[in-house]
Amino acid sequence: MESGSKKWGFQVKQGMKGASTPTVRGVLYMLMDSLNKEDSRAVIPLAHGDPSHFPSFTTAAVAEDAVINSLRSAKYNCYAPTIGLPAARRAVAEYLNHDLPYKLSPDDVYLTSGCHQAIETALAVLGRPGANILLPRPGYPYYEACASYNGLEIRHFDLLPDKGWAVDLNDIEALADDNTVAMVIINPGNPCGNVFSYEHLKKFAETARDLGILVIGDEAYDKLAFGSTPYVPMRVFGSTVPILTLGSISKRWIVPGWRIGWLVTNDPNGILRNSGIIESITKILEISSDPTTFVQAAIPEILENTKEDFFSKIICLLREAADICYTRVNEIPCITCPKKPEGSMAVMVKLNPSMLEDIDDDMEFCVKLAKEESVLILPGVVLGLKNWLRITFAVEPSCLEEGLARIKAFCQRHAKKH
Amino acid sequence: MESGSKKWGFQVKQGMKGASTPTVRGVLYMLMDSLNKEDSRAVIPLAHGDPSHFPSFTTAAVAEDAVINSLRSAKYNCYAPTIGLPAARRAVAEYLNHDLPYKLSPDDVYLTSGCHQAIETALAVLGRPGANILLPRPGYPYYEACASYNGLEIRHFDLLPDKGWAVDLNDIEALADDNTVAMVIINPGNPCGNVFSYEHLKKFAETARDLGILVIGDEAYDKLAFGSTPYVPMRVFGSTVPILTLGSISKRWIVPGWRIGWLVTNDPNGILRNSGIIESITKILEISSDPTTFVQAAIPEILENTKEDFFSKIICLLREAADICYTRVNEIPCITCPKKPEGSMAVMVKLNPSMLEDIDDDMEFCVKLAKEESVLILPGVVLGLKNWLRITFAVEPSCLEEGLARIKAFCQRHAKKH
Ligand SMILES: Cc1ncc(COP(=O)(O)O)c(C=O)c1O
Ligand SMILES: Cc1ncc(COP(=O)(O)O)c(C=O)c1O
Repeated sequence: MESGSKKWGFQVKQGMKGASTPTVRGVLYMLMDSLNKEDSRAVIPLAHGDPSHFPSFTTAAVAEDAVINSLRSAKYNCYAPTIGLPAARRAVAEYLNHDLPYKLSPDDVYLTSGCHQAIETALAVLGRPGANILLPRPGYPYYEACASYNGLEIRHFDLLPDKGWAVDLNDIEALADDNTVAMVIINPGNPCGNVFSYEHLKKFAETARDLGILVIGDEAYDKLAFGSTPYVPMRVFGSTVPILTLGSISKRWIVPGWRIGWLVTNDPNGILRNSGIIESITKILEISSDPTTFVQAAIPEILENTKEDFFSKIICLLREAADICYTRVNEIPCITCPKKPEGSMAVMVKLNPSMLEDIDDDMEFCVKLAKEESVLILPGVVLGLKNWLRITFAVEPSCLEEGLARIKAFCQRHAKKH
Repeated sequence: MESGSKKWGFQVKQGMKGASTPTVRGVLYMLMDSLNKEDSRAVIPLAHGDPSHFPSFTTAAVAEDAVINSLRSAKYNCYAPTIGLPAARRAVAEYLNHDLPYKLSPDDVYLTSGCHQAIETALAVLGRPGANILLPRPGYPYYEACASYNGLEIRHFDLLPDKGWAVDLNDIEALADDNTVAMVIINPGNPCGNVFSYEHLKKFAETARDLGILVIGDEAYDKLAFGSTPYVPMRVFGSTVPILTLGSISKRWIVPGWRIGWLVTNDPNGILRNSGIIESITKILEISSDPTTFVQAAIPEILENTKEDFFSKIICLLREAADICYTRVNEIPCITCPKKPEGSMAVMVKLNPSMLEDIDDDMEFCVKLAKEESVLILPGVVLGLKNWLRITFAVEPSCLEEGLARIKAFCQRHAKKH
């Protein structure tokens, strides 16, 4: 082999090579590396939204059976159409229609490999030179990653902790211009655990309409709401402004590994239809991976026949966990929780490092916490908010109590002595 | 709603909107639309490579059971690492190591959502302004679609029907330049049904090495070889030139809907490692959909414990089907099969429209055949070869006999009278 000196033709695309901001996964791996292997206590994972390993969060039997029946039938070992099996698209349309003032057709639904692929697809469709997108801060960094990859300039609007994480609508008006293609809202909110009110969503939709901007409504946590604010899905406002609804079964059924989601065009006024966006979604999906066919084939059964008591059990669990989290966090002097979580699986809490002796910021807090207490939580800096922390409360309540007790002990140990 | 006159901010990316060359799927749908609903005979599908609906092509029981056990364990409802479950990566490395003169490590393996996502990923990694890629003609149009999407200029080298579909290596030397990033080889070949000889693959690898170009070895049909040319996987030549091996369980296990494949870096000399490509693969996979976790978890069992008699039954079936196809096609005056298929699931045959009265080209042939005989085959123009036809022989032998008899009747009916 004499290739040492040869100029190999392959080189890596600009922008793919150098690491930019730390990614959630990157930080999680780093925190896991910081764990102390000598600590005989169990690791308490409060850093990511996947409770599927906990017995209380086992998925519904009907969902598991539906997939097994579909596989055993041997009818779904085949390729599926790129936009999804017709029966699954119909089932998703009907599922979403339950709480819509207008009606979706199966043609409005595109099956994706989880909500992630719905995000990838939406941003691939919208990306073009010079365009920008408005993303919430704090937010879900997959949007930032996909936006950058698709050449979209990112502009952040703030979610206001003092106003229950409401969107700063003035911010939006100041940020948007003729090249703004969309604004994203995540409801129920990750990472804040908030649920936006009907009135606020309405104003959000009207702001988007007045600016002539598409709304991307991330409903990954659809229906996972358990507080005093009634949950209204963003998609309800499709007559005000065209909405791309992104959803999945990952969170509500606690099966993120099944990789089934959807991108839905909520467009009762036909604005998207004339824009080329629909055509473009189809073209992107033609060169993207398809969700597993036999899992798609189980979707009608899963969406139609999961028992209400499965959902209510999960909601009760999450409510209990959110309560524990809120109460215990506010017993710790150097952290405050501005708002009791009302939805999703995580909450943002504010760290006051000036009350700590030898910890300068959220990242250091999380690294030392992992090392000394075998508890994993996410530093807010990864989500755009320095000196905040994201705590996932979707774990067994006993495990959550234990984790928060360890955080309390940790903070006491590191507290400044007066 | 007062948005009629408003300038909506969203617009669709250049290059996504206008349809360019017809896609395989587009043509298939068009042919299906041409079917005559009055025809009471069954439709004979000889246009696409998915025999999973035929009883003789049912997947191995061990594979189905492996997936069901994995799902029933409830341990794999979770997210998987973006590059794949470690056990699955290890199993793929071991599976491929059986016939390699050097050894892969699990770190060389990236799990993908079928071979399709391996193609998407490889071309996303290699795409950069000004770069070009060498693709076989006839080929597999997913490469063309992904190359265009990633801004790679496409240059075609010919596969030569008179030389058993060997690569025109002179062509390659004439096409390559400093901006050529890779050349693709599909072995066993789709759409030609050929199997490249050891000697020829060696020359291909040496040509790539001398030009300083990466090889992409598409092994979607790995081991599906049943003719006189011994099958040698392209990956065997990793010491000559760095190879990205793309593979999957779709074809050998006849489960294309399960969406499990792999991208493997065959790089015993460490050339890729220093090029940034490995890092770039990981980054692309971080913003791409993951294969279903519980199917990934079944991969070790599937790769290690599928019985030899399952494989040999499928090989026998394909050999029988290839024989029928070759014999029957050559009984039809206006079509000729230059080489008996030795691998994969399809073959290219040459159409002579001058022997037909009212048919001008391959597209018209296929449309009329669908309409009059309810037989679907693919016009070669979609694959870059006008007036050729791609016939998939991976169907029940009785069904194949029937389909070819109908093609014969069709050709007789349309033959020019002397
Ligand atoms: C806000 C948000 N959107 C999308 C996703 C992706 O979910 P899926 O598993 O359906 O891809 C997540 C996952 O955590 C999320 O938090
Ligand atoms: C040459 C070739 N490569 C890749 C693929 C994609 O296979 P998979 O089902 O693994 O995505 C196919 C499917 O027909 C193929 O023919």
